[in-house]
Amino acid sequence: MKIDGTHYRSIWFDESDHSVNIIDQTRLPHFFDVLTLNSLDDVCHAIRSMQVRGAPLIGAAAAFGLYLSLKKGDLPPEQAGKLLLATRPTAVNLQWAINRVLDTVQQAPDNEVKTAAALASALAICDEDVSNCTAIGLHGVTLIRELDAAKTGPVNILTHCNAGWLATVDRGTALAPVYQAWEEGIDVHVWVDETRPRNQGASITAWELDKQHIPHTVISDNTGGHLMQAGQVDLCLVGSDRTTYKGNVCNKIGTYLKALAAHDNAVPFYVAVPVSSIDWVSDDIPIEERDSGEITSIQGLNSQGVLDTVRLTPEGSAALNFAFDITPARLVSGLITEKGIVSADEQGLVRLKGLLNSD
Amino acid sequence: MKIDGTHYRSIWFDESDHSVNIIDQTRLPHFFDVLTLNSLDDVCHAIRSMQVRGAPLIGAAAAFGLYLSLKKGDLPPEQAGKLLLATRPTAVNLQWAINRVLDTVQQAPDNEVKTAAALASALAICDEDVSNCTAIGLHGVTLIRELDAAKTGPVNILTHCNAGWLATVDRGTALAPVYQAWEEGIDVHVWVDETRPRNQGASITAWELDKQHIPHTVISDNTGGHLMQAGQVDLCLVGSDRTTYKGNVCNKIGTYLKALAAHDNAVPFYVAVPVSSIDWVSDDIPIEERDSGEITSIQGLNSQGVLDTVRLTPEGSAALNFAFDITPARLVSGLITEKGIVSADEQGLVRLKGLLNSD
Repeated sequence: MKIDGTHYRSIWFDESDHSVNIIDQTRLPHFFDVLTLNSLDDVCHAIRSMQVRGAPLIGAAAAFGLYLSLKKGDLPPEQAGKLLLATRPTAVNLQWAINRVLDTVQQAPDNEVKTAAALASALAICDEDVSNCTAIGLHGVTLIRELDAAKTGPVNILTHCNAGWLATVDRGTALAPVYQAWEEGIDVHVWVDETRPRNQGASITAWELDKQHIPHTVISDNTGGHLMQAGQVDLCLVGSDRTTYKGNVCNKIGTYLKALAAHDNAVPFYVAVPVSSIDWVSDDIPIEERDSGEITSIQGLNSQGVLDTVRLTPEGSAALNFAFDITPARLVSGLITEKGIVSADEQGLVRLKGLLNSD
Repeated sequence: MKIDGTHYRSIWFDESDHSVNIIDQTRLPHFFDVLTLNSLDDVCHAIRSMQVRGAPLIGAAAAFGLYLSLKKGDLPPEQAGKLLLATRPTAVNLQWAINRVLDTVQQAPDNEVKTAAALASALAICDEDVSNCTAIGLHGVTLIRELDAAKTGPVNILTHCNAGWLATVDRGTALAPVYQAWEEGIDVHVWVDETRPRNQGASITAWELDKQHIPHTVISDNTGGHLMQAGQVDLCLVGSDRTTYKGNVCNKIGTYLKALAAHDNAVPFYVAVPVSSIDWVSDDIPIEERDSGEITSIQGLNSQGVLDTVRLTPEGSAALNFAFDITPARLVSGLITEKGIVSADEQGLVRLKGLLNSD
């Protein structure tokens, strides 16, 4: 997507110096900094510290991590894969992307070919991610078009966390239908959950929408229920870090609460799901517990224009920080995938498998 | 309750210099500052800026505001009452306390007697609030005792916002049963919703519990649903700014979402309600909209030990800040009042009226 007129992806390979580059998402929305990742360590750090985040993007970043590791020749690729996999436990794309690169690399005869194969694989993962996100946008926009036809005034869409282009390589998952709708001239307005503790909504989603000039309003995570009761939400659109073959959706903590409110107020609740984030095997989802410092403190821009962290809680108070929760399939109106919209249940996922096999 | 060994109320009259004193709640949990209120203006400012907050406490503060205004003789008491009423729209106690003082004052022959009557009325409101909160604690603790008897390990109680002693004159509403349980030696643990945007949970509830040495853990507002799914919450206990004769509960924004999660997971959801906060006439509740700056920025303690405000959102992003939401009666397990626990419906409130009339 464009930032002040220039097109960017969230991660890119620079042919001229063979560097891997990212936008440092921990500095948004206040500062736009590009970082170059030079090693496996850099990639692991970028994923762990959430300089890159979002299930599809961390998959792409991990693929480049294997490439950088092979380029240096510092570790067997399987070991590098294990280090990458350990950075974040919940997103299934990480495993998917690592396996995909390792498969390609295994067949290569020597380190030079392995390195080239890993790079080719990482680049393919990125390009496919962009086309998958574009397809999700095209399928999802049909929902927005219908809502638009049935009402006057903007279609009000509530989203949680960031499943925009910065959570993917480009275009986004949950926000892809919004971008598509906006480009088609549909009047949309997005309610942006700030998404404590890391505030990916208030910082990244708001920044993305601001840069595309799409009307949006940041709200506290507590507000969505009241807005739905008041008829101010036409559609909930969220992403997913892992969706199981049963249609249960693991997404940023708090998603479940919005799904309950949507259900209680008959607001459609759709989840944008790239096929790579589906767990076809297990319904068991490990929930990442992150540093409690993300609850006790928060980062923002101080009056001197400097990023600073301020403490929120008493020194004597403990805090607990789960990163995700699980929204049961029964609360999900449907899954928007790159192959089409399917119901969030075993039947729907079997149908999706059929669509994949018929490719 | 005690702060480092000394007993405090949240508002008190000092006989020695006839001053009205409060704890500045905008500085908690980082600084404990006592403020003296010298005028109607001081009281209006204290309520509006939330140096005092919580439905029972702002009622008590407004009563003292009328006293201070009469002492100065600067305004007719009815006019002072209107200014006080305009400070916060949602809590019904404000109206209740102002009416009560004005009624007393009307019968008094001259300004000196009016002033004395207003003071006596304010002091009575405070003392009654303390005994009401104590009674709420005694009724509510029966729920905790039952849960304690049925399980091993601590009784896990989730609360939203602050309905502790700092929301009242002393003892609290939703936290009164917790204090009572703790004093009875029951093993309790409190999940404290941080309660964005003003973080009364992370700052005030956590501070209160910390000062009483009660085990507690601060969580983001997004977390409660996941904890309930995981069986980590035995009871939800929240306060109310206004409960209508139909049993609908208006409380801090986000309460509705927790009630939905409690309902979905069969967790009892009780609301502590002093009778003064019941609207016996109307089911129509005005929802206060506060400054959007409370969403776009947040206050905390910086690394220099100074309270500072940092910006969270992009400059170009709008924000919206509703302070309360309404939890429908159907999601409320019961109302804990100073007269006993009643069901959250018209029948229950008629029963409560009977208990009041039989006094």
